[in-house]
Amino acid sequence: MGETTNDLARRLSFLREIDRLKTVVRASPLLDRSRKENSAEHSWHLSMYAWLLADYAASDVDVARVVKMLLIHDIVEVDAGDSPIHGASAGDQAEKEQRAAQRLFGLLPAGQAEELISLWREFEDGQSSDSQFAKALDRFQPLLINIFTGGGTWADSRVSYEQVLERYGPAIERGAPALWAVAQAWVASHFNRESR
Amino acid sequence: MGETTNDLARRLSFLREIDRLKTVVRASPLLDRSRKENSAEHSWHLSMYAWLLADYAASDVDVARVVKMLLIHDIVEVDAGDSPIHGASAGDQAEKEQRAAQRLFGLLPAGQAEELISLWREFEDGQSSDSQFAKALDRFQPLLINIFTGGGTWADSRVSYEQVLERYGPAIERGAPALWAVAQAWVASHFNRESR
Repeated sequence: MGETTNDLARRLSFLREIDRLKTVVRASPLLDRSRKENSAEHSWHLSMYAWLLADYAASDVDVARVVKMLLIHDIVEVDAGDSPIHGASAGDQAEKEQRAAQRLFGLLPAGQAEELISLWREFEDGQSSDSQFAKALDRFQPLLINIFTGGGTWADSRVSYEQVLERYGPAIERGAPALWAVAQAWVASHFNRESR
Repeated sequence: MGETTNDLARRLSFLREIDRLKTVVRASPLLDRSRKENSAEHSWHLSMYAWLLADYAASDVDVARVVKMLLIHDIVEVDAGDSPIHGASAGDQAEKEQRAAQRLFGLLPAGQAEELISLWREFEDGQSSDSQFAKALDRFQPLLINIFTGGGTWADSRVSYEQVLERYGPAIERGAPALWAVAQAWVASHFNRESR
């Protein structure tokens, strides 16, 4: 009984702590442009992308694993903050995220802590099929937002056509080539270029 | 190619449409009380609850299915709005949600539309083990918020100890008795009662 109580208490403590992901504000707006998106609702949306677009992954993926990976991919931001794609990159961001992963996932009982840290590392490493698809979606969703909000973060940060291709293209094409075909056409049209 | 394009376009159209779940505001606050929670981030949080608390379900559950169920359980609110537990119940809410499910999930290609409608109906019906666990979490998470924010929606709506037991107890106890044991103790302490 004492052990069960402690086990459950640790799980609940983690679930309370990650409530703060709802207050981490991203660079991207909502599609209705009413405000910026936060990392918790972004994670929900990406999980839906993974489930519904899995047929377009570059290779066979385990949908349930990709969904879980995307549910937790940004949890380190509770401690480390968001690191926008077009922002100046903080040199110690990776180290801050490592420490955040240890502290946050470490709130869980050992078995779950290991499972979540391992899945988060797999996402970060981007070597497996599952993580490459997850990373493709993590690039594709903000690109879609920018297209459907008349520029979004590209307008905010004066990002060029070439920079968009360079910053979004490789990850999306690697994990979901059919999505990159669609995205490329959108981007070309957005910047009044012919798709290449 | 034409068929693929149309299939992908429908999936993307649905994924754009559900962005609006981020603007559906619930009665519950965030744990830091800075604002109310929205239904998209609530769905993310519940999916995390399902994954991490599945060992405490009343009977064996398929975690991946419960996660999917909780990712979509509130999507009908994009059209039908939120229906707070302590609010006056709109007589036609169930009908509005049925129409919303048809319209929203109907944006998807037929196979996916059927899958999501069927999973949403299973959640609403609350007859299966998976849906009973999902429903238990959908009651437990706002209860936890109220406990850790000094009353939350109970304070707002002058909800009594007896009403809390009656409105949260059956669903939580049915799907996750160990969570109800914890919740009951919290609630008794919150209302300065002895746990019964």
